[in-house]
Amino acid sequence: MPSIYLDNASTTFPKPQAVPDAMYRFMTQVGSNINRGGYARAYDTEETVYETRQLLCGLFGGQDCRQVIFTKNVTESLNLLLKGFLRSGDHVLVSSMEHNAVMRPLVQLEARGVAFTRVPCAGDGSLSVERLAACLTDRTRAVVMTHASNVCGTLLPIEAVGEFCRAHALRFFVDAAQTAGVWPIDMERMHIDALAFTGHKGLLGPQGTGGFLLREDMVPLVEPLLSGGTGSLSHTERVPDFMPDRFEPGTLNLPGIVGLHAGLLWLRETGIDAVRAHELQLTERFLAGVRVLREKTGGVCVSGREDLCGRTGVVSLRTPGRDPAQVAYALAEDYGVLTRVGLHCAPSAHRTLGTYPTGTIRFSFGWWNTADEVDAALRALERLLEGRGGHGA
Amino acid sequence: MPSIYLDNASTTFPKPQAVPDAMYRFMTQVGSNINRGGYARAYDTEETVYETRQLLCGLFGGQDCRQVIFTKNVTESLNLLLKGFLRSGDHVLVSSMEHNAVMRPLVQLEARGVAFTRVPCAGDGSLSVERLAACLTDRTRAVVMTHASNVCGTLLPIEAVGEFCRAHALRFFVDAAQTAGVWPIDMERMHIDALAFTGHKGLLGPQGTGGFLLREDMVPLVEPLLSGGTGSLSHTERVPDFMPDRFEPGTLNLPGIVGLHAGLLWLRETGIDAVRAHELQLTERFLAGVRVLREKTGGVCVSGREDLCGRTGVVSLRTPGRDPAQVAYALAEDYGVLTRVGLHCAPSAHRTLGTYPTGTIRFSFGWWNTADEVDAALRALERLLEGRGGHGA
Repeated sequence: MPSIYLDNASTTFPKPQAVPDAMYRFMTQVGSNINRGGYARAYDTEETVYETRQLLCGLFGGQDCRQVIFTKNVTESLNLLLKGFLRSGDHVLVSSMEHNAVMRPLVQLEARGVAFTRVPCAGDGSLSVERLAACLTDRTRAVVMTHASNVCGTLLPIEAVGEFCRAHALRFFVDAAQTAGVWPIDMERMHIDALAFTGHKGLLGPQGTGGFLLREDMVPLVEPLLSGGTGSLSHTERVPDFMPDRFEPGTLNLPGIVGLHAGLLWLRETGIDAVRAHELQLTERFLAGVRVLREKTGGVCVSGREDLCGRTGVVSLRTPGRDPAQVAYALAEDYGVLTRVGLHCAPSAHRTLGTYPTGTIRFSFGWWNTADEVDAALRALERLLEGRGGHGA
Repeated sequence: MPSIYLDNASTTFPKPQAVPDAMYRFMTQVGSNINRGGYARAYDTEETVYETRQLLCGLFGGQDCRQVIFTKNVTESLNLLLKGFLRSGDHVLVSSMEHNAVMRPLVQLEARGVAFTRVPCAGDGSLSVERLAACLTDRTRAVVMTHASNVCGTLLPIEAVGEFCRAHALRFFVDAAQTAGVWPIDMERMHIDALAFTGHKGLLGPQGTGGFLLREDMVPLVEPLLSGGTGSLSHTERVPDFMPDRFEPGTLNLPGIVGLHAGLLWLRETGIDAVRAHELQLTERFLAGVRVLREKTGGVCVSGREDLCGRTGVVSLRTPGRDPAQVAYALAEDYGVLTRVGLHCAPSAHRTLGTYPTGTIRFSFGWWNTADEVDAALRALERLLEGRGGHGA
């Protein structure tokens, strides 16, 4: 049975062939570290790493590619940003749609005197910017917000929130895990002070890559959570205050960054508009199919926005009367349709959507998915909901 | 000109062919994440990750493979351990041979009320355990120590230090960056409470991998520095207190871990004793050659131990009267001999060795190096020291 991979919000798959090829070439023919070596092979890799920073800086409208920091994943990025920036007494606003990569660090920080307010989103995950003002206190220092929900794909109005932050002299932190490489992001225009991204979703690199971008005036405000050897200022035991060394101690994930570099080149050539158009086309097809199914069986409904407006290619379904875990299991086992079920590490988002604690089945589409695959997933869902599917059916 | 890679202390190269092969296979045929998915492909990868924990636990004499945590590098591991464990008012002992991956976090912690004492090592980098007792205070809570110097290869007596820690009820943290996969380490026998390792040196995995092992009773004593989604307890915004989830938020570097797994299998088959014997044989040959060169030209000497006793396959050379950076540059450019020059992110070690701030040229041998390569490196060095080498010579 061929599998239909609809779990691209977890990690995109497949990657452009250039990604594994570049990693393989690095692992077999290059191998050496950078910064700390003085030979040509090391310089070539250093050039690739530098170019990767440039590509990311260009993609996100950053100020300077030295302010592009590599981490192992977006979770590390968010921890470095939040724990490095927030101090006892500070207050921050978050949306009620955040992933635990934001919420767990904030709950840890609460124990150290940082307060946060969850700005309530609507039942479809959307946010009215007007809601923010009422949540401000005289201690509020920043807004932390995801660009789009990892549960249901609803986009948050980050441009308007950026404008709000500018007007209220707040710092604006954006979690772009679900949108980087698919949706336009412009730090300058959107007044984003710190942008956290992952490398293995829309940017099409391997797991183990991610990072963040800072505005230059943020650099001294973020204390380095991690420190160690940087290959720079090696005569001192103090952390260098220049970028990117301030936040990049230890050996970089070079095969990972080389793979991410290849993913970014593919993306530049293909164009994020083309990727987004394709994903939304599949999403529209899927949503239309679910509407038909809902009318026919009554056993399924969309959590979040039911149309294509203000959303990414991530769709969450409830299956009233049926355990979503069992449905997702049968989708995978009997039809090869690979989804992700449960709470998606985002209990706050599921509470907002009214799907806590049961959770949903999440379908997420990517560049390599086809209309035929969408139709096959819908047929599988239909069979299961009509009780004709499942083991041995 | 073929290159002779003598920079294995930075990262080993090449890797066993199975390492890039496994990574390529994962990137092209598997790709999916674990823990958060419910389909077979995800389970297979989960199995490989679990087996990697088992292999590491077995190699290091850990208590339980759930206490094996993956990080992006040993620097992250040391930060998570030191900053998670040490509290204001605590005092720790370190050797004077530590890398900045230990020293920079400790200097950061100093600003938060943690004190440390640098136990002085001898001029060859070796340590007398008797020196520790005099440095104890009634606040001393732990000893943090590298297993072997990354600058000169001198081994520290971690077994005796472990015994000392046990006798004085101190916790013992070991940085095994330079020894894991080459030297025997047994957490139980050596009374090691926390062991930090890197995946891309002696363990022959790719850059981007590393981790640490904890004794079970240490788990609640180390606060998680990073937090986020774990695919477990997704209904709560609190960090799970069970292992390994407590310290592994966000997406793991799966291609990296799959590569590390292949490296560990190769290592188990080959045997760390065979690897060590080979590296030491080359080191002995190199040291003998340097002795001859020294007598002949007077322009070179070993920093650290001059014989094979109590050392790894890492040799640092001074070149009195010549800039080591220029010598290393000429070695690479004119003879293809790739070394690493400078302070090696370890100013404290270089001060101890008397090579601060000039630094040394470091030669480090690995499994794939040959006696012929050692001889070629010695010949190149001889020509440069006799002034016959260099550009156009």
